[in-house]
Amino acid sequence: MTRLILATRNAAKVTELRAILADAGLSHELLGVDAFPELSDVKETGVTFAENALLKAHATARATGLPAVADDSGLCVDVLGGAPGIFSARWAGRHGDDRANLELLLAQLADIDGAHRGAHFACAAALALPDGRERVVEGRLTGVLRFEAAGDGGFGYDPILEPDGVGRTCAELSPPEKNAISHRGKAFRALVPAVRELLA
Amino acid sequence: MTRLILATRNAAKVTELRAILADAGLSHELLGVDAFPELSDVKETGVTFAENALLKAHATARATGLPAVADDSGLCVDVLGGAPGIFSARWAGRHGDDRANLELLLAQLADIDGAHRGAHFACAAALALPDGRERVVEGRLTGVLRFEAAGDGGFGYDPILEPDGVGRTCAELSPPEKNAISHRGKAFRALVPAVRELLA
Repeated sequence: MTRLILATRNAAKVTELRAILADAGLSHELLGVDAFPELSDVKETGVTFAENALLKAHATARATGLPAVADDSGLCVDVLGGAPGIFSARWAGRHGDDRANLELLLAQLADIDGAHRGAHFACAAALALPDGRERVVEGRLTGVLRFEAAGDGGFGYDPILEPDGVGRTCAELSPPEKNAISHRGKAFRALVPAVRELLA
Repeated sequence: MTRLILATRNAAKVTELRAILADAGLSHELLGVDAFPELSDVKETGVTFAENALLKAHATARATGLPAVADDSGLCVDVLGGAPGIFSARWAGRHGDDRANLELLLAQLADIDGAHRGAHFACAAALALPDGRERVVEGRLTGVLRFEAAGDGGFGYDPILEPDGVGRTCAELSPPEKNAISHRGKAFRALVPAVRELLA
């Protein structure tokens, strides 16, 4: 059975991609990078989601000798020209402070009315082989930004993005509801044909 | 002599535009809004520099019965898709804290190398007449963002933008040096033909 590694330490992502591969009838064994404790984190020096996903996938494929999948994602606000984008996780200046990032964004957009609060989550998913071959695809979840956070689920900017037609924020959706429409779910599903082709 | 009002409380802007009009051989008398103490500030609800400049020019022309000029400007960072843009003055969440805005931007871009630090100052200058006629033009000053602030002159993001070919930040330029190349100087000069045409 072909083994495939997902360049993440997030167990939920591994579970999600494993289910998507199984749904697609693919029988590859999916590992997380925790299976290779000696791997160091890859510096995300790209300036697009696709570049960062490819950087991580290639680095992981080279280091492990296995085909590797990686993703990079963020929130893109229309009136900000797509920012925070690749800077989503460090928007308030230091990495990973979800609450500070979200509150800064709400403060920046305080004067922007509902007609101009369009935004989308974007996710690039990349597949890289140890021989250098690669594929990268993108998934999106479009919606509007709330004026206040709502909901306890999810992470990141989930409490302020209300997907089009849903009436609740991403943080108010159950995990299955969110996975069904999420940018990452779409990107991972869009990557299935590439997995099928390159790992045939 | 035709009177013209500049929608700003910044005396330096009035002086600069007055000099530009004089250089162009125009003899309009230029007033600042301080000549009309009863005027309230205009809410900048636009989502582009041009929209905000036009909002301010129209509101001032309506309130005073005089032809009015207004400008709106900010810093546009390439890798941020043009942000901070119209949000430049409130980037760190509250209006007008230059140092916090600049430090947040440097922190957000800390991992972005010199090859991807392109940015420009943009200024929209608008002319509106009490009868509703309008013109709007834009000026830019392109350069790269430093990793640290340098210089004590200017304001806003001047200490971190190094204009192309200059070797110093905008905050290290003398006022005449800065005015000669600045986005606002360019926008005001580009507006001269509209002043000549609409106020003939």
